[in-house]
Amino acid sequence: MQPATMTPEQARAAFRAGLRTPTAGYSSGWTQANLLTLPRADAYDFLLFAQRNPRSCPVLDVTEPGETAASIFAGDLRTDLPAYRIYRHGELVEERGEVTDLWRDDLVSFLIGCSFTFEAALLEAGVPVRHVEQGRNVPMYRTNRECRPAGALAGPLVVSMRPMPADQVATAVRVTSRYPAVHGAPVHIGSPAELGIRDLDAPDFGEPVSIRPGEVPVFWACGVTPQAAVMRSRPALAIGHAPGHMAVTDARDSDHLVP
Amino acid sequence: MQPATMTPEQARAAFRAGLRTPTAGYSSGWTQANLLTLPRADAYDFLLFAQRNPRSCPVLDVTEPGETAASIFAGDLRTDLPAYRIYRHGELVEERGEVTDLWRDDLVSFLIGCSFTFEAALLEAGVPVRHVEQGRNVPMYRTNRECRPAGALAGPLVVSMRPMPADQVATAVRVTSRYPAVHGAPVHIGSPAELGIRDLDAPDFGEPVSIRPGEVPVFWACGVTPQAAVMRSRPALAIGHAPGHMAVTDARDSDHLVP
Repeated sequence: MQPATMTPEQARAAFRAGLRTPTAGYSSGWTQANLLTLPRADAYDFLLFAQRNPRSCPVLDVTEPGETAASIFAGDLRTDLPAYRIYRHGELVEERGEVTDLWRDDLVSFLIGCSFTFEAALLEAGVPVRHVEQGRNVPMYRTNRECRPAGALAGPLVVSMRPMPADQVATAVRVTSRYPAVHGAPVHIGSPAELGIRDLDAPDFGEPVSIRPGEVPVFWACGVTPQAAVMRSRPALAIGHAPGHMAVTDARDSDHLVP
Repeated sequence: MQPATMTPEQARAAFRAGLRTPTAGYSSGWTQANLLTLPRADAYDFLLFAQRNPRSCPVLDVTEPGETAASIFAGDLRTDLPAYRIYRHGELVEERGEVTDLWRDDLVSFLIGCSFTFEAALLEAGVPVRHVEQGRNVPMYRTNRECRPAGALAGPLVVSMRPMPADQVATAVRVTSRYPAVHGAPVHIGSPAELGIRDLDAPDFGEPVSIRPGEVPVFWACGVTPQAAVMRSRPALAIGHAPGHMAVTDARDSDHLVP
């Protein structure tokens, strides 16, 4: 069975059985999501931060406290992602394959949109996706733009970057504008210095990619933004997916397409 | 000064000075919003209900606890709407012109999108808006569709209805789809019985309008939905606008338009 042709249920069963791998390329056409699990006491500030910063933090689903499944994720949130990161008081303390023993009745899980969803549409429209071509993680940068704070949460906008020929930028805008629930249109095109980015070859997260002569860097709001803000507020416990090791959901990519 | 040409600041000053009037037609081009003010303890359930039911409950802005202004509303939320309704334990106890004496440090205010915003666009596209033609309040109906519950909040979807000639329905869909932040596309077209609506001439809220031979009733999710769910959960205190007496904000209608 190829990763791309696995159903979400099959992919989740493989991860639950112990397979530990980045999920890029798994279950083609099915939406992958960022996971963030927090105590109920910290959940309002996070949901409000998301409401105020919808481009970087598009919430796809939220569980009731203690629930281990979500309406778009019929698996078990404690075991069915390939890898988890555990934060205590804002510090990363551990990365591992399941978090069953940490689960509590007051934990709320957020599933947050991921730009993997529109990359298939970009490729279909003939727009290159360099990190996919080069088999790397997407480059991500902290910017000099502050998010709108909410309660204890504040932090800079983090962006992902995809370079492309100048004559394809308009197509990339048009295609990704139709996916507002998974970051939508670019937030910035060209001029990295304006965002406070000094060196595109030295991303703050992920890996650098090649930028060819005449290509323009195009920047999208990134799902790392909300997690960075949450960590800065130092909640007693937070559980997230390991970067690139996403939740494979039962939502279709096409569910996020607007007319 | 005509109501339509007043700036939001001028309209708010007039309401603050005691003018009590429905706001339809005021400050043309500026977004009007539903107001709901709740104790912080009840705010998470409401924000989650909104996240789960975005078509009926499009949140435009949320204040920090105790704040009397919002990022899209530079006036005073306690005095600058023409009329308020006060609910205690889910019961309407009073309607009046200002609520300064009720304000507390723990009150959070939600501004929620209103379909007034797309009616100008419908008229511009040649689609009739019958309740405007007839000088009535829009007819609204409880349906047999349940919203997705959140914590203590649950209730039926409430819809507004606009009748139109069959050959203009597609235009109405196309135009309103571009305003997802203010209820967006219709949720149902024709067949009121399918929604559990027995008699279009007997709306649950607002006033009936004429439906001409060959016209089709078109239904949109309505901002009454979240308020009905909140009242059912019986919070100790809730403050809302009086129906039709909306918050005139500093956001432009065009801010809510998607490409």
